[in-house]
Amino acid sequence: MSTKPFGILLVRCQDQKGIVARVASFLHDFGGNIVDSDHHTDRETGDFLMRMVFDLAHFQLSREDIHASFAPIAKIFGMTSTLHFSDSRPRMALMVSKYEHCLVDLLQRQRRGELAVDIPMIISNHSECQFWADRFEVPYCHFPVTPGKKPEQEQQVLEVLHRHQVDVVVMARYMQILSNNFLDTVGCPVINIHHSFLPAFIGAKPYHQAYERGVKIIGATAHYATQDLDEGPIIEQDVMRIGHRDTIDDLVRKGRDLETFVLARAVRNHIEHRVLVYGKKTVIFD
Amino acid sequence: MSTKPFGILLVRCQDQKGIVARVASFLHDFGGNIVDSDHHTDRETGDFLMRMVFDLAHFQLSREDIHASFAPIAKIFGMTSTLHFSDSRPRMALMVSKYEHCLVDLLQRQRRGELAVDIPMIISNHSECQFWADRFEVPYCHFPVTPGKKPEQEQQVLEVLHRHQVDVVVMARYMQILSNNFLDTVGCPVINIHHSFLPAFIGAKPYHQAYERGVKIIGATAHYATQDLDEGPIIEQDVMRIGHRDTIDDLVRKGRDLETFVLARAVRNHIEHRVLVYGKKTVIFD
Amino acid sequence: MSTKPFGILLVRCQDQKGIVARVASFLHDFGGNIVDSDHHTDRETGDFLMRMVFDLAHFQLSREDIHASFAPIAKIFGMTSTLHFSDSRPRMALMVSKYEHCLVDLLQRQRRGELAVDIPMIISNHSECQFWADRFEVPYCHFPVTPGKKPEQEQQVLEVLHRHQVDVVVMARYMQILSNNFLDTVGCPVINIHHSFLPAFIGAKPYHQAYERGVKIIGATAHYATQDLDEGPIIEQDVMRIGHRDTIDDLVRKGRDLETFVLARAVRNHIEHRVLVYGKKTVIFD
Amino acid sequence: MSTKPFGILLVRCQDQKGIVARVASFLHDFGGNIVDSDHHTDRETGDFLMRMVFDLAHFQLSREDIHASFAPIAKIFGMTSTLHFSDSRPRMALMVSKYEHCLVDLLQRQRRGELAVDIPMIISNHSECQFWADRFEVPYCHFPVTPGKKPEQEQQVLEVLHRHQVDVVVMARYMQILSNNFLDTVGCPVINIHHSFLPAFIGAKPYHQAYERGVKIIGATAHYATQDLDEGPIIEQDVMRIGHRDTIDDLVRKGRDLETFVLARAVRNHIEHRVLVYGKKTVIFD
Repeated sequence: MSTKPFGILLVRCQDQKGIVARVASFLHDFGGNIVDSDHHTDRETGDFLMRMVFDLAHFQLSREDIHASFAPIAKIFGMTSTLHFSDSRPRMALMVSKYEHCLVDLLQRQRRGELAVDIPMIISNHSECQFWADRFEVPYCHFPVTPGKKPEQEQQVLEVLHRHQVDVVVMARYMQILSNNFLDTVGCPVINIHHSFLPAFIGAKPYHQAYERGVKIIGATAHYATQDLDEGPIIEQDVMRIGHRDTIDDLVRKGRDLETFVLARAVRNHIEHRVLVYGKKTVIFD
Repeated sequence: MSTKPFGILLVRCQDQKGIVARVASFLHDFGGNIVDSDHHTDRETGDFLMRMVFDLAHFQLSREDIHASFAPIAKIFGMTSTLHFSDSRPRMALMVSKYEHCLVDLLQRQRRGELAVDIPMIISNHSECQFWADRFEVPYCHFPVTPGKKPEQEQQVLEVLHRHQVDVVVMARYMQILSNNFLDTVGCPVINIHHSFLPAFIGAKPYHQAYERGVKIIGATAHYATQDLDEGPIIEQDVMRIGHRDTIDDLVRKGRDLETFVLARAVRNHIEHRVLVYGKKTVIFD
Repeated sequence: MSTKPFGILLVRCQDQKGIVARVASFLHDFGGNIVDSDHHTDRETGDFLMRMVFDLAHFQLSREDIHASFAPIAKIFGMTSTLHFSDSRPRMALMVSKYEHCLVDLLQRQRRGELAVDIPMIISNHSECQFWADRFEVPYCHFPVTPGKKPEQEQQVLEVLHRHQVDVVVMARYMQILSNNFLDTVGCPVINIHHSFLPAFIGAKPYHQAYERGVKIIGATAHYATQDLDEGPIIEQDVMRIGHRDTIDDLVRKGRDLETFVLARAVRNHIEHRVLVYGKKTVIFD
Repeated sequence: MSTKPFGILLVRCQDQKGIVARVASFLHDFGGNIVDSDHHTDRETGDFLMRMVFDLAHFQLSREDIHASFAPIAKIFGMTSTLHFSDSRPRMALMVSKYEHCLVDLLQRQRRGELAVDIPMIISNHSECQFWADRFEVPYCHFPVTPGKKPEQEQQVLEVLHRHQVDVVVMARYMQILSNNFLDTVGCPVINIHHSFLPAFIGAKPYHQAYERGVKIIGATAHYATQDLDEGPIIEQDVMRIGHRDTIDDLVRKGRDLETFVLARAVRNHIEHRVLVYGKKTVIFD
């Protein structure tokens, strides 16, 4: 997307006649050229989801007024809607344990301008990734998890996230399970990378499970973290062919590449407001 | 797509404000629910292309009147537009030489309802595929190419195609190069499958070329036939990994699968009016 | 593989020093040029598996005598070994229910020489595929499954398989679960195609399960049928990307292509004696 | 591969009877268990290539004596052979211009132990990547290319490479064409990454060429640099699907990921002595 600012309007409601026409006319009537639009209707549930991107250059409403002006239309159709601007940079917190591959990849993409986010901090239960935080000059919050003190540690994490008004949390191989309380309280989406092709190999040590089962392909899955472990809405998946010569160590090594680019694609789609969740699923407008 | 009939409106013009809103309103104002819509703007050329699918069930215009009613809008924006109906079955001619794999695949897909077309005839310069024409009960036109008589043979082909008012010709491994005169005269799109990842290995014996070069991946390309051999707009491509153990025969064998499903996907997208050509490129609204 | 005959020696034992050297010397000493060889050691279990292909043209032992001459070596290393000849055509029975896509694909590949097998019959619990049996001129055994009479039907199937001395059974979307008794009695490998990326979506209606879960990729798995449903050793898997626009019908349609070529590759590897089973896994020497 | 040391014997000669048996026996007779072996015969050219990995733990010859002891066998068969040890770390120089993605990826893989090499220096014609050299604590040689002074710059590069006895040079998006003189003099293999699916889009700006042609898939190719630009033996290739929405900037961005992991796989295969070159092709024993 080019550097001139765009508005991104996300809409969800029950399907009904005239939505596309009505929303397109609203934007057009105020001078907004629609540069990208996509919508989807789930024929079984009747859910309608839409994403419209419009040029702000000659738009006749101030940014503050757009949503209010749109409210009556949203009301008619029973829509929930959100409005984003392409030049506002979400604040993305990274959580990591010992493995650095996803972390470094995301830091690098952000540094070279592929991910238009600010990264206020890296949070870890271990000290290993301090090395990378230093090199990328990002603050590192080391909150160890000690026996019986996990709730306290989660409180530390939540306090930091809230203080920095984080918009999205990315678990870049953070090896702790977040409590229901954490997910209820965090107040923003949490993206996780699971190192299997979900729903295959849910839970611990998926590469070991894959090796035992003798599959010919391994996978990785980026999903929103929800209270049901590994059951959250899937954002992105990909796979890689393996063979009988591959040991568990080979699966772990090859899997790192998979995890890295699956998570990167999911994060990019999320921060560009291309991912809409409904029920247990996602729609990706890419 | 379900069995109830839809209108499919394809539009092309120079990009300008308000197109989406205007067209969506047109359809909505006559009672047509938009069930699918997609558009694309080429930022370099300024080309705008759009596909809108709308429910005909309660549409207030007869099929005959839609296009005329739309004409004033098309004129305002300088659009070229075409209108199709999901329940009209295009007439698709298949051309083949000796290799039957693409032919049988397309016949089978049509038979099981994956391709909503009629197949008035198979045309071949060889007799081998008569076997399959008989089994699928499709008329077989055997027009051999004899030395110095190719123009006459092309006339035979054209005569049959015109007589049956064919809407699209698919060269399912037809190993003759069609003359410019043929392409000028045929009067409908011609889809070809080339057995390489174009633009690599243009021309004859691409698997031999691939083998000589030592590539690690082979490909196939479905494209519209134009006067520049192997230079027509690409509809679909796919690839397959190969290794040093693969002989040329192995490439030919593995390539058959590639050719088969690349051509099938291209044909399906074409007949569902998902392929829009502009310049030397295509837009695929899938 | 070219038309001149080869011997294919498959060997399995516990890993120990000198196996490759000893077997290679045996073949060489009798004038057998090794044209292909591959082996694998599972470092965890200590299993050693090897496949050696050798030229029979100047081999000094008759085919009948090779295995007996090899027996002392096999004994020293505690090997189980089997010997095959590239010019002997396995007898492959096809079992099918109503869906014809895998069936027609395998028949076509056999007809064009890609699968060097004889197909003595097609067995089905339905009559639909008689159409294809007639066209490919393969005998069709229609054994319906009637309520409470499944054991009798399986006896009919077994009787036919045994009478024709079938070497391998391929369930080309045969929608009945084979009983333990059947699998115990059949006396040859049974290959099944499951329409999911196992172990995800075991059991019935995997495309429906995939749709419900919102996965971004669907798969298919060819495996040997064992008494644990969908738990047999995996021979081949592949996947295909899907999106939110795909309905269950689309998954079924796209999945047909996946099922078709995953099963075809598994069958080809099996009949070329490239698949060695050990424990719950396979080694594929391709 | 585990940490215990292995010998890796690479062999090339014209195909003839008894090679596998003779070499396997040689290794076995001195107490070397063959843990991995692979070979390939090119049926057209008659080239025979083999890789045998054997356990050094109980091998009865010292490392220094192995090659000399093998010499008589090599002579009989007219072999060229090389011997490597799994615990010797090749010295790999990295050359880079302004783009850092391949560089950082290789540095990271080396740091986490995926690439068992030493990296004595990074060489660049620009200063941008000094940033990363500092962070990874690798010496950075900045040799700018000034008009008319390219031969002098190449001499600087050669001098550094020779002084550090470099075993392999990796052009990690080094945007200068190396002269024939350089390639003749460098004395070790040079691996390059080209940002297209060769032989498509040879030369400059392949992503622009791909965009103009309207391909549906982009690729990257790692190959040995030879005097014929972009014509060297291909080590690894991979591809990625693109669509009409992708601008040239998108191709460049997506292509970075392709380039990164294609080059990483090629480098890993090279340093593990899995790549054998013959003619204009490679054999990859993986």
